[in-house]
Amino acid sequence: MNIQKIIAKKRDGKELSRDDINYFVTKYTDGTITDYQAAALVMAIYINGMNEEEITALTLEMANSGDILDLSEISENVIDKHSTGGVGDKITLILTPIIASLGIPVAKMSGRGLGFTGGTVDKLESIPGYKTDISINNFIKNVKEVGISVIGQTANLAPADKKIYALRDSINCVASIPLIASSIMSKKIAAGANKIVLDVTVGSGAFMQNKEDATKLSNMMKSIGKLANRETVCVLTNMNEPVGYAVGNTLEIIETIECLKGNIPEDIKEIITTIGSYIIKLSGKNDDLEQNKKMILENIKTGEAYNKFLELVQNQGGDIEYIKNPDKFEKAKYILPVISEKEGYVEELNAKAIGEISVILGAGRIKKEDSIDKSVGIILNRKISDGVQKGNILAYVHANDEQKGKEAVEKIKSAYKISEMKVEKEKTILGVI
Amino acid sequence: MNIQKIIAKKRDGKELSRDDINYFVTKYTDGTITDYQAAALVMAIYINGMNEEEITALTLEMANSGDILDLSEISENVIDKHSTGGVGDKITLILTPIIASLGIPVAKMSGRGLGFTGGTVDKLESIPGYKTDISINNFIKNVKEVGISVIGQTANLAPADKKIYALRDSINCVASIPLIASSIMSKKIAAGANKIVLDVTVGSGAFMQNKEDATKLSNMMKSIGKLANRETVCVLTNMNEPVGYAVGNTLEIIETIECLKGNIPEDIKEIITTIGSYIIKLSGKNDDLEQNKKMILENIKTGEAYNKFLELVQNQGGDIEYIKNPDKFEKAKYILPVISEKEGYVEELNAKAIGEISVILGAGRIKKEDSIDKSVGIILNRKISDGVQKGNILAYVHANDEQKGKEAVEKIKSAYKISEMKVEKEKTILGVI
Repeated sequence: MNIQKIIAKKRDGKELSRDDINYFVTKYTDGTITDYQAAALVMAIYINGMNEEEITALTLEMANSGDILDLSEISENVIDKHSTGGVGDKITLILTPIIASLGIPVAKMSGRGLGFTGGTVDKLESIPGYKTDISINNFIKNVKEVGISVIGQTANLAPADKKIYALRDSINCVASIPLIASSIMSKKIAAGANKIVLDVTVGSGAFMQNKEDATKLSNMMKSIGKLANRETVCVLTNMNEPVGYAVGNTLEIIETIECLKGNIPEDIKEIITTIGSYIIKLSGKNDDLEQNKKMILENIKTGEAYNKFLELVQNQGGDIEYIKNPDKFEKAKYILPVISEKEGYVEELNAKAIGEISVILGAGRIKKEDSIDKSVGIILNRKISDGVQKGNILAYVHANDEQKGKEAVEKIKSAYKISEMKVEKEKTILGVI
Repeated sequence: MNIQKIIAKKRDGKELSRDDINYFVTKYTDGTITDYQAAALVMAIYINGMNEEEITALTLEMANSGDILDLSEISENVIDKHSTGGVGDKITLILTPIIASLGIPVAKMSGRGLGFTGGTVDKLESIPGYKTDISINNFIKNVKEVGISVIGQTANLAPADKKIYALRDSINCVASIPLIASSIMSKKIAAGANKIVLDVTVGSGAFMQNKEDATKLSNMMKSIGKLANRETVCVLTNMNEPVGYAVGNTLEIIETIECLKGNIPEDIKEIITTIGSYIIKLSGKNDDLEQNKKMILENIKTGEAYNKFLELVQNQGGDIEYIKNPDKFEKAKYILPVISEKEGYVEELNAKAIGEISVILGAGRIKKEDSIDKSVGIILNRKISDGVQKGNILAYVHANDEQKGKEAVEKIKSAYKISEMKVEKEKTILGVI
């Protein structure tokens, strides 16, 4: 077996065997295969695609390249929830305490933000004291104690995926459905879940730009799940505009607290009830999705979800005084309004553009090594279909650098497209697969 | 401009602009673009192809990446002859002294062997004392003095091509017509020729496996030549079996001497007269191809071509006693006959297999850094369509390692396919484009 022959196969559009894929993943992870050979193969995969067997083999080989967590002592059904990424996506933060408050154990490893998409771990670290890098033993101990733990990916999970992902990023081969599917599923499998609920984001602020691609990706992940014996549900959600109103780390924590107190924007409510209803179903607790949605809203109303969030934060070493009194969070130095120069209705609010502007402000990373500024970001004041008068405030920029803040204001104006005609609100849930 | 966007364009099958190609060639040569980014782009080019404008741009940018020789002081028309590579291909060695003996100056830079194909420079270095690495000034001086100089590529010619070729080799992206065409033409343009005659080899021992691909490659190189203002003629020659009877460095020099003395195998005679007749035509000396062929044969007959070869060798520091008395050449330790176990006619004599066997014996290189063994190789005794009796000698292996020699004997048996029916000789010249 040698990499040249494997490259030639995929270059010519032929199928790779499980052995070929095992050889590639193993030898690339250990450094025998060079980056440029891997780059050539990845580009050939990007262009010529892979069939279901190849994608499943790649997924399992990447999962097996590092530790496979065993979370079976926590519960018979270990459910993982994952989003394919977006802007203002704080669903994990809101949903996990709700689920835990219903008595379903939550052992969740999350990622950091990269590019225009944010990451749950960065957001959690905006809470002073919150530790995202605890050991696996403490992670499991926390779940047993309070029913929930949300941390960063601390174990050596799917190192092959990490290496291949970084390579894909540097050679512009991220947006490949087989490669996205295998990347996501390899991490979920390695993280110990046997049931997986995926939030597949669709639109300008997501990897999948349209429903057709999102459906393809979802079907592929479901097939991998089936072949790998992991029940998988995909919920397609709209990411043409950001989720909720806040974009930025501290700002999203504050919006999370508001949501858990019952002040939930409509789009967030739809997403958490839909995804949550499937999580409850897969847990074995209750099959009726409508009942599940009610349980979710009920536990917000009673404050149990909010209290579970306080428990989570406290148990991870976070200072819950910040949660109880969000005014304590450090604010950005400059809060600049974005004022509409037009009158009409918001027709577009480009999520990707908003994500990129938040990165410029310092809320995200361009490269993995970049540090982030927790307090900066954007608070939207108008979303798609909202009416706007000339002089109305479209959004607020939270900046620590005045010049960058002013630039952000101008850029946000361009991210809004105002039309004269009334625009319908887009659907938030585009389908369940 | 950035490499990520250029990669994405070609990944999606779009056309690269001259600026894109300039950026890639310049920044890859200076190391700004990494090998893995270049590998991804090269694979995308391999799979998605390039149009004529892109290929011409790539050729010119690669030519411009290093020195461009100015040979105009030698002659108004500087003609370069180049072969796309093969097994037993000593045409340059035989043809250049003939051309020079006709009063047409020959300033030829040749390459080394890589993989199963040999290289003129390695063969010339089998002549004790022959210097292939003289300065450009001495190169031009030699041409002025004796009308001929054949050396290695000493100047900094098309360094971008060198780097891209090495990369293509390591990621199995050599056999791409656009990439082969631009690689060859960039070196020819940088080497100072304004008229180019290309020997496009076709068959099992060549990059181009069939006439269709060879025609495509030829048309592409002619187009590049036209757009780059270099008149180009392509002669398609058969490379299903090796050229002539000798394969190996010293062995091919000895065959060259024999040919120049008038003992020319039929295939070599056809190739040198055809290619030579176009070289004479492009030089402006005489337009009539049939007359040109006669001149070539005449100058062999009179000994003028042989004498020119002696002059060439002497002028480059080579010991002409070896040319005058080829018995002086160091012989391999073991000369092993390959004996036919079958009776019939040679139907196939796989050139690539013969080339690979010669590499195993030490006559060629697998990696660029490998050293070669000058004396080893293969002398064929039967070629396609020749009759064979059981017990006849098909070929002789010249080896310095007995074990390798014995292995070569067995492998050569497999490279011969003997049929019961009389087989027609294949055409040597497949076309002129």
